[in-house]
Amino acid sequence: MTTHRPWPLQVPGIGYGGDYNPEQWPLDVQLEDIELMREAGVSLLSVAVFSWAQLERREGVHTFEWLDAVLDRLHGAGIRVALATATASPPPWLTRRHPEILPRTADGTVLHQGARQSYAVSSPVFRQYALRMTRTLAERYRDHPALALWHVDNELGCHVPHDYSDAAADAFRSWLHKRYGTVEALNEAWGTAFWSQRYDTFEEILPPLTAPTSVNPTQQLDFARFSSDEQLAHYRALRDVLREVTPHVPTTTNFMMSTGNKWVDYFSWSADMDVVANDHYLIAADPEAHLELSFSADLSRGVAGGAPWMLMEHSTSAVNWQPRNRSKNPGEMLRNSLTHVARGADAVMFFQWRQSASGSEKYHSAMVPHAGRDTDVFQDTVELGRRLKALAPVRGSRVRAEVALVFDYPSWWGAELDCHPTDALRYQREVQRWYRALWRRGVTVDVVCPQGDLSRYRALVVPTLYCVTDQDAARVAQAARAGASVLVTFFSGIVDEYDHVRLGGYPGAFRELLGVRTEEFWALQENETHTLDDGTHADLWSEKTRLEGAEAVRTWADGPLAGRPAVTRRAVGDGAAWYVATRLDAQGTDRLVGAVLDEAGAGPEVAGLPAGVEAVRRHGEHGERFLFLMNHTGESATVDVSGHELLRGADVTGGLLLPRGEVAVVRET
Amino acid sequence: MTTHRPWPLQVPGIGYGGDYNPEQWPLDVQLEDIELMREAGVSLLSVAVFSWAQLERREGVHTFEWLDAVLDRLHGAGIRVALATATASPPPWLTRRHPEILPRTADGTVLHQGARQSYAVSSPVFRQYALRMTRTLAERYRDHPALALWHVDNELGCHVPHDYSDAAADAFRSWLHKRYGTVEALNEAWGTAFWSQRYDTFEEILPPLTAPTSVNPTQQLDFARFSSDEQLAHYRALRDVLREVTPHVPTTTNFMMSTGNKWVDYFSWSADMDVVANDHYLIAADPEAHLELSFSADLSRGVAGGAPWMLMEHSTSAVNWQPRNRSKNPGEMLRNSLTHVARGADAVMFFQWRQSASGSEKYHSAMVPHAGRDTDVFQDTVELGRRLKALAPVRGSRVRAEVALVFDYPSWWGAELDCHPTDALRYQREVQRWYRALWRRGVTVDVVCPQGDLSRYRALVVPTLYCVTDQDAARVAQAARAGASVLVTFFSGIVDEYDHVRLGGYPGAFRELLGVRTEEFWALQENETHTLDDGTHADLWSEKTRLEGAEAVRTWADGPLAGRPAVTRRAVGDGAAWYVATRLDAQGTDRLVGAVLDEAGAGPEVAGLPAGVEAVRRHGEHGERFLFLMNHTGESATVDVSGHELLRGADVTGGLLLPRGEVAVVRET
Amino acid sequence: MTTHRPWPLQVPGIGYGGDYNPEQWPLDVQLEDIELMREAGVSLLSVAVFSWAQLERREGVHTFEWLDAVLDRLHGAGIRVALATATASPPPWLTRRHPEILPRTADGTVLHQGARQSYAVSSPVFRQYALRMTRTLAERYRDHPALALWHVDNELGCHVPHDYSDAAADAFRSWLHKRYGTVEALNEAWGTAFWSQRYDTFEEILPPLTAPTSVNPTQQLDFARFSSDEQLAHYRALRDVLREVTPHVPTTTNFMMSTGNKWVDYFSWSADMDVVANDHYLIAADPEAHLELSFSADLSRGVAGGAPWMLMEHSTSAVNWQPRNRSKNPGEMLRNSLTHVARGADAVMFFQWRQSASGSEKYHSAMVPHAGRDTDVFQDTVELGRRLKALAPVRGSRVRAEVALVFDYPSWWGAELDCHPTDALRYQREVQRWYRALWRRGVTVDVVCPQGDLSRYRALVVPTLYCVTDQDAARVAQAARAGASVLVTFFSGIVDEYDHVRLGGYPGAFRELLGVRTEEFWALQENETHTLDDGTHADLWSEKTRLEGAEAVRTWADGPLAGRPAVTRRAVGDGAAWYVATRLDAQGTDRLVGAVLDEAGAGPEVAGLPAGVEAVRRHGEHGERFLFLMNHTGESATVDVSGHELLRGADVTGGLLLPRGEVAVVRET
Repeated sequence: MTTHRPWPLQVPGIGYGGDYNPEQWPLDVQLEDIELMREAGVSLLSVAVFSWAQLERREGVHTFEWLDAVLDRLHGAGIRVALATATASPPPWLTRRHPEILPRTADGTVLHQGARQSYAVSSPVFRQYALRMTRTLAERYRDHPALALWHVDNELGCHVPHDYSDAAADAFRSWLHKRYGTVEALNEAWGTAFWSQRYDTFEEILPPLTAPTSVNPTQQLDFARFSSDEQLAHYRALRDVLREVTPHVPTTTNFMMSTGNKWVDYFSWSADMDVVANDHYLIAADPEAHLELSFSADLSRGVAGGAPWMLMEHSTSAVNWQPRNRSKNPGEMLRNSLTHVARGADAVMFFQWRQSASGSEKYHSAMVPHAGRDTDVFQDTVELGRRLKALAPVRGSRVRAEVALVFDYPSWWGAELDCHPTDALRYQREVQRWYRALWRRGVTVDVVCPQGDLSRYRALVVPTLYCVTDQDAARVAQAARAGASVLVTFFSGIVDEYDHVRLGGYPGAFRELLGVRTEEFWALQENETHTLDDGTHADLWSEKTRLEGAEAVRTWADGPLAGRPAVTRRAVGDGAAWYVATRLDAQGTDRLVGAVLDEAGAGPEVAGLPAGVEAVRRHGEHGERFLFLMNHTGESATVDVSGHELLRGADVTGGLLLPRGEVAVVRET
Repeated sequence: MTTHRPWPLQVPGIGYGGDYNPEQWPLDVQLEDIELMREAGVSLLSVAVFSWAQLERREGVHTFEWLDAVLDRLHGAGIRVALATATASPPPWLTRRHPEILPRTADGTVLHQGARQSYAVSSPVFRQYALRMTRTLAERYRDHPALALWHVDNELGCHVPHDYSDAAADAFRSWLHKRYGTVEALNEAWGTAFWSQRYDTFEEILPPLTAPTSVNPTQQLDFARFSSDEQLAHYRALRDVLREVTPHVPTTTNFMMSTGNKWVDYFSWSADMDVVANDHYLIAADPEAHLELSFSADLSRGVAGGAPWMLMEHSTSAVNWQPRNRSKNPGEMLRNSLTHVARGADAVMFFQWRQSASGSEKYHSAMVPHAGRDTDVFQDTVELGRRLKALAPVRGSRVRAEVALVFDYPSWWGAELDCHPTDALRYQREVQRWYRALWRRGVTVDVVCPQGDLSRYRALVVPTLYCVTDQDAARVAQAARAGASVLVTFFSGIVDEYDHVRLGGYPGAFRELLGVRTEEFWALQENETHTLDDGTHADLWSEKTRLEGAEAVRTWADGPLAGRPAVTRRAVGDGAAWYVATRLDAQGTDRLVGAVLDEAGAGPEVAGLPAGVEAVRRHGEHGERFLFLMNHTGESATVDVSGHELLRGADVTGGLLLPRGEVAVVRET
Repeated sequence: MTTHRPWPLQVPGIGYGGDYNPEQWPLDVQLEDIELMREAGVSLLSVAVFSWAQLERREGVHTFEWLDAVLDRLHGAGIRVALATATASPPPWLTRRHPEILPRTADGTVLHQGARQSYAVSSPVFRQYALRMTRTLAERYRDHPALALWHVDNELGCHVPHDYSDAAADAFRSWLHKRYGTVEALNEAWGTAFWSQRYDTFEEILPPLTAPTSVNPTQQLDFARFSSDEQLAHYRALRDVLREVTPHVPTTTNFMMSTGNKWVDYFSWSADMDVVANDHYLIAADPEAHLELSFSADLSRGVAGGAPWMLMEHSTSAVNWQPRNRSKNPGEMLRNSLTHVARGADAVMFFQWRQSASGSEKYHSAMVPHAGRDTDVFQDTVELGRRLKALAPVRGSRVRAEVALVFDYPSWWGAELDCHPTDALRYQREVQRWYRALWRRGVTVDVVCPQGDLSRYRALVVPTLYCVTDQDAARVAQAARAGASVLVTFFSGIVDEYDHVRLGGYPGAFRELLGVRTEEFWALQENETHTLDDGTHADLWSEKTRLEGAEAVRTWADGPLAGRPAVTRRAVGDGAAWYVATRLDAQGTDRLVGAVLDEAGAGPEVAGLPAGVEAVRRHGEHGERFLFLMNHTGESATVDVSGHELLRGADVTGGLLLPRGEVAVVRET
């Protein structure tokens, strides 16, 4: 995924559109759709995502005529199609005939039909039906001129990240056999000498089903890996059919890379993706949801290896699945969309084109709302189409960052296992704490996995990298030696990939690099905070730490560890290694980020911007620089920039006035 | 349900008594029971509610002698009996022999014996056993002189409102087949084109079992309808046997009409009831629980079509099933009882006569408590008997109201489905908000269903009438045209009976009537409130609304919708239509109710009463007027009324002094 | 267990050690273990607790060589062994071959392998395998010189206190048959006349499986008794084999006597124990966790009938299974350990010797932590060994108390059943409230069951003794007549052992003794408090009580019961009986405890100590007095005592200076 492949999506400029589900509507509405799509400048639609039951109404009986008509009509309107494999939800006839394909939870509850995604991804019976549908579709539409992209299944693993069915148990055993070779190796890795868990054969192994108490943590961690891999295996199986039948058409599936989706290790998928596609939805209860959006976009770019990616779903306004769904304020949807573009998206799509009148998602906003075209939402849909057209020159350009944040799905899984020093640690909260401090300072950040090249950054933030292989740890240390300021936070480097504690003192794999040795973790109680020597506070976690080469940057001013180091620094090669052995408050976090950035010589994308004005640059192959400016504040701002503002088509010299809530994109000169 | 049938209960005056479970007690206690019942003036008892296992100790072996003796003894004491079918809970021998009659939850958990009501109401096996027991009882006691009423089962649907067993699945499919005729019609109604849910045959359909995510909402709504209908079908089946064997004896079952019981649409049952009977229990944590009591009584009267009804269960003091059960303060039980009578009850009964010494309900208060006759509770039992005797003239009289509140069980079900703009909307809280504002103003309210005649009221309050047919919507509009002030609140008229959104703008079915068009719902976050232009506040919900014929009554003074209308009014025919697009605070609600009542020319039952003194009139067939006055305050009050006070047997001229906590009933002159 | 058997553990002085799981480590680590154990003065280790899968790798194939080597090595180092039966967790081959041995929850969920303790204790198949393993081990090691004690299974009932499998249902029926003889007697005891629950045969009975609503409370209570008895039956079965094969070796199992472990009635086990052993862990969120520790130790002594007992597990620092696990402050572990000794422990052991590198308990502290010997934790391990050696003279001495607190597991079970006046009553909170008030006053307390001899105490505290037989009630009354001040709190004496209410007025069995009659319970709402006539407050509970022989000590100053008694006292024989009909606040509780102690002439172990300095004496057979002093405060304290301080080996005359956090043990002269 690190090769610089050309952007494979055969849609001009920045792609624009959404999910299109015409099977829900009568013909007159479908004809109006075309008219409105033209008005909005739509260029790309996802079609047939949930059409299996419409395409195969009973086993082997296919009804493609309606879909032929839809594709022909879209082609006639100049709109291209990301055609789904239609396998995202098996039809009732299939689940009723083959109930063995239904997934099960850890306590044995069967997840039935009636919603969507009621299939066990490991089920060979389901696989066979899904492959047949995929092949049938591929063969039928291989030469259709509207076909631009294959969309495999949908949000793989969304509702059923873990399946505990018999099919899953079989597949888990095979996966383990492949991973470990011998049952002795598995026993060693899982530490089955404890609690009488030794397996005599692979056949004795089960998924981590509900048990009297905490299930073996390595078993849990391996089951998380297996579950992610099974989704990937399913993707690959369908993708292989598509490649065979339509080698000229790229394939993707829509990821869900955001702070809420834990169970698919998208970094491990990237080599298999022709295009990385992401679905992103704002968190209504988060007053700074646009920071989480930026993180998601940066993570998408990270998974895409820095290449452009596509935003396959987001929402024009409220969604329907959060406890209280927030509608978007004026300008917010446009800022959201262009922030994704700023951070590397070369297509912007929505779920969905037209808001459904029935079903579970009818209160999810769409490009055409229930109230029709005479609405702010549809006007914004049109306006976004206009703007994306103006941004065609941006296509293919890339973001450049001097600072990286190391993000690791297995560490997320591992750090949140049960029976830990505290159950209040949430990996994503720790990641967000540091990401947001960098965002507020205007710093563009790459979100990368520890298997990437870490040595090209000036500064590296490594929050709670709990599980780490020797090689990963070495890569982090190498970055410091190569000159980076590396900041590592608590509960990092603790275990190897088998969840075995690295003995001799914490933080295990990073002990030497950081020059500290922690005797004991010292988790804090709820509402327990202590003070550091600079007057800031910290909570959640502390450690009984000794300096072994590092210097203390902050020490505890009170509490049971008064006088001991809380933040340390050690000079390493051309760089430095910082350790944060607690959870700093906002001020403490910001100060520390400032110190590390200063030391690293890394700074904001644009200096001197008011708080809340976001700036990110995309760089073209030939040196073009596109500065995206998003004003999230209630005040207009003046930005010191010269060039051509693409959205309004106006030249800017010296100072750009950016009204409150607005976006500008300046091709800098 | 609108015919004015004579009050069928052959008990003199206002019936008085409770559940009687003599099988729990030795003979000496049963003999003392008769003595105490005489002291208390008991005239009616529910007998044999949970006696199946005592009457049929093993399959086909009946033991009726003990019940014969009980009925004879009661008859000897002049007490009449509401005889139960004894089918409310199958005996262990039946559930052990036929485990297939056990109900199941959505996730497949079997609900076993050991408590009560462990039967699947759709099970043909259970039905057959229940019919046999019913017929056996009816035949044995058809001519018993104590028999006054049949009591079918008990609180149907109380613990198992929804059953997901195989028997339920079969019955659901039959119900759907009858409702929709063809599977194509069902597919259209359920919107199965979405999420690949299309059914090819009825056989493929299941109840809304646990699934990977949100189950089809129309399926959920239909399952709620089906579940209510199945309870009714069971009632009808048993009732038909009783009618066949004892055509001279009326039949009822005890409803649970209160704010906490959601899953039976009692309005749809009323045509089948010879007498409407209700069970009501105060909510201990509600500091104004007596307002909820009044609502429940008004709803009972509504379901009875305005006719008298019977209070079949309430409590002398604390119940045992709430988190913290509150005992009743001095006078409270008497006020509660007489409030039910004031609002139309012609019988007052308790669960239960004598407090059990063992079992799950032993901490539920009774007419004779654990501590025996030398207790305040038993003294109040006697006092109530005395008072009800004095109220004999009230029997058969009726309440008259100028204001109605439209209440709709399917809208309750629909408005609280998942995947909505907010999951914090609770239908009953919205209903109570308006009901209580009217109560505080002393206004007598009919609680009616939208299928009733709405045009005879001066004012109509329509809170969150989410699901509405065209005919129901027309009936509401007709009331406005006929001169009523109609107040509709947010999330009304949104969908048709199939949960399909009415397109073109909200509030769909009422858009024209109200003269507004909402582009988009704007749910508010937790603790998010905004200010209206009169300084009151609102939370939970708002809407991006445009006036299309209406005038703004309140606009938003701040927040994302500042300047837009929040409350509107449109003149319609001889009346007016008001729309409340948010949730007003208490002051805002009260002000608006005041404005609507003023416009409608509707007012309190008695003007000028102090807050907390409740007044309701019952009107006799020949013009008699009985004014019930309940003083819920800690101060005595003077009421301007003349006539004869029935409880004390004293004439009142001009002013009645009502001591704190007391009740008076004045036959006005 | 009331015979004064000699302390049977053949380890010199106070035993010291922990769980030892060498199978988790390579040989070099095991060799280092011996060296470190010698440094720490370890004398006793629990071995093979979870070794079944290592000892029997597949059915019938045993691998004892590694265990032989371990035992030989320990013997060589002079360390003795509490050898486990290795049956605490069945190996995967066993659960996979015999899935019928897996336990089930009330809703039918199977508890699978993967954690530990995945067995149904009632399963005859499991029993047979466990007996075979026990016999095999006993025969192999019967003559091993390291063998000092048998350790049956481990924390019996810890994770699966209740099993609802078919095996459990069979065993429950047999247990009931034995308890009741006839099904008629069971029907009477369970009150099955209510809710149609009558059983015609024992075969119809099931465990209290998930049902539509509250399951019969006597059934629940009997199932709790049965569940405790089944664990005991399993203990006995294995113990009997051990006694047969190794009659010279005592047997025990580790109890979990603390405020959090509800479901085993350890008092009913004590006659079967050669040694009472306890596991105790601090509650991290409890700011006064050391008071709960003292309670647990006193309860252990109570179960041991006053004899010495062993602390089989506690922790050197943090555990891993609480929400936020607190590490121990400097000195805390030493204070904890010696408080157990002060209150009767003659052995102090930890879970575990060496902190695991993998598995579910790897973040549980140990004697040798992850960071190795160069740590505070290991230094404290060594220091504790030194101190325990100095305390050898204490071995066999006993604590003496003038005050007892009556503690009853069935009352705990019964008082917290559902459908009670309030669901906010927590038995242990009530017990702790009184225990802690006594602790703060420095009073040494015996925690005893109501079946013990209660007449030898000056004061008796009886909190919420809900279920009480006539004999138990008589024993309490006898203590008062014999001169004790007996304090009984609300919801005591309410039911007999079958959960039948004692009629005629509360508190039933204690009504006469206390000279009060409560007509009605009056549970208070959340946050509802009322004031007493001395200005203190009370919440949770109140009662409508009349004096019938008692005098009012406190009355209600406000609230619905204003003027009625809240606390009463009646002179009885040579003593007095106090009743507390509500939950007093801390000040009210303390004042009342003061009044009762004054009346009883009972006082602190050492007068005049500062708050937070704990003092307990152990008395030797020949009049030796060992005063344990634990300073839990942050200030040093001077204690007026003379004698020889054992830990430092220094004579003390008149005044001992006890530094903050420190412990002293003075052999008084």
